[in-house]
Amino acid sequence: MSVGTPAATEELRGLVEEFIASLELTPELGGQQESMRYALAGGGKRVRPVICLAVAEAAGARPAEALPAAVAIELIHTFSLVHDDLPCMDDDNERRGRPSAHVAFDEGVALLAGDALAAEAMLLALRYDTPEVARELARATQGMIGGQYLDITGGGGDLAELHRLKTGRLFAASVGLALWLAGVPEAGQGSWRAFGEELGLLFQVVDDVLDGDGYAAELGPEAARALAHEVAARASARLAEIDADTSVLEGIVRELAVRTA
Amino acid sequence: MSVGTPAATEELRGLVEEFIASLELTPELGGQQESMRYALAGGGKRVRPVICLAVAEAAGARPAEALPAAVAIELIHTFSLVHDDLPCMDDDNERRGRPSAHVAFDEGVALLAGDALAAEAMLLALRYDTPEVARELARATQGMIGGQYLDITGGGGDLAELHRLKTGRLFAASVGLALWLAGVPEAGQGSWRAFGEELGLLFQVVDDVLDGDGYAAELGPEAARALAHEVAARASARLAEIDADTSVLEGIVRELAVRTA
Repeated sequence: MSVGTPAATEELRGLVEEFIASLELTPELGGQQESMRYALAGGGKRVRPVICLAVAEAAGARPAEALPAAVAIELIHTFSLVHDDLPCMDDDNERRGRPSAHVAFDEGVALLAGDALAAEAMLLALRYDTPEVARELARATQGMIGGQYLDITGGGGDLAELHRLKTGRLFAASVGLALWLAGVPEAGQGSWRAFGEELGLLFQVVDDVLDGDGYAAELGPEAARALAHEVAARASARLAEIDADTSVLEGIVRELAVRTA
Repeated sequence: MSVGTPAATEELRGLVEEFIASLELTPELGGQQESMRYALAGGGKRVRPVICLAVAEAAGARPAEALPAAVAIELIHTFSLVHDDLPCMDDDNERRGRPSAHVAFDEGVALLAGDALAAEAMLLALRYDTPEVARELARATQGMIGGQYLDITGGGGDLAELHRLKTGRLFAASVGLALWLAGVPEAGQGSWRAFGEELGLLFQVVDDVLDGDGYAAELGPEAARALAHEVAARASARLAEIDADTSVLEGIVRELAVRTA
């Protein structure tokens, strides 16, 4: 495997796509499964699960061991998008160039699709012997929901806190789940977790630069771009503190910093 | 503690109410907590958590040990009610004589309240060392969602399967979670689980008799009442197979069979 290059992350992304394509959902969901698969197949970049796999590998686990946790995070992310798109939330009829789940199916089915994606994510996280993987996922889900709440209710104007919760908590969990499943003891998780916090912020700032809102609107596009570079540098500095081969993660930081979509 | 009488179940219900009243929700949920507490305080009969506590006690655990699991089931039940009441589902503006969550707050906040109740339930179930408690809860949640899906899409006309999933799965889980946390080995769970299946059916048939729909509409009120008695007798027969003091559970079967609200 080539390391530290986009090729390495492409390989991990391929593993994620394969796992999702062959994922057996709970049989009792019956016809509900179709809307879940529709939402999951939306062609996202799988950034969060790729990070989870890369952290797990750097921390000494095999990617195959990390796949259930990695895909659990993608399911939580997808659940949040399906619910965010509903008319009572952002009311978005399109998601990544396709009709949103509630347009392709109907609102009730989309609501249940989100609910079921969240529970299926927990089942994936519960495949591990240690309950810490599932605990971290459930806590991150609550943080994300706290962020969505701030978003729809006005949020008291604290943009940083809103994004730390709404976007950042799942990025942080991508790192955190990998640490638990790789058996990294809590005392050795500090730099890893600090890295995860920076990753979430980096993703959000670049997102805002590309969309011209959020941080770009608040700081201006130039200052937001400069902030992104700063955050990327901080993320790399955290990786440098870690006694492991983090070159694939270095590559992910670079990819996130310069992405154009 | 008086045993086998309504007083015993009242005592257990009191423990459930106390636990819910003092339950700390995930701090990052912030202002979202208010809608969750509103939905939880709706004055339900707490049937599922009381069953969970009674099974746990009969199987040798202390009620205090069983409270997180018992209340986890109540949170999943409440999550399902909040989402069921939304305009895109049953569109019910009232729940137990109070405005539904989406009326008291707004639709987006109610949607998130349901999501967060589900994740908080998982965190409660994850307080146990064994991941089986949380696994059983997540699987039951999926079964319940499968039942909601049948309900809103017409369901192929199989009323028994619809109710086995939508109502029955959480009743079965009330028994199942208690078995895991009390350390009942899988090989010894058969009669217990058969009892749980009957309980769910009993609850639903009596519900339909009281509301004049479902089984009462399909079979006629007399035949539905007769079915309820039959199911209650089967539930008691299952209890008789179990080598434990199941008198409180006998009392619950009687209460469920003759309830008028």
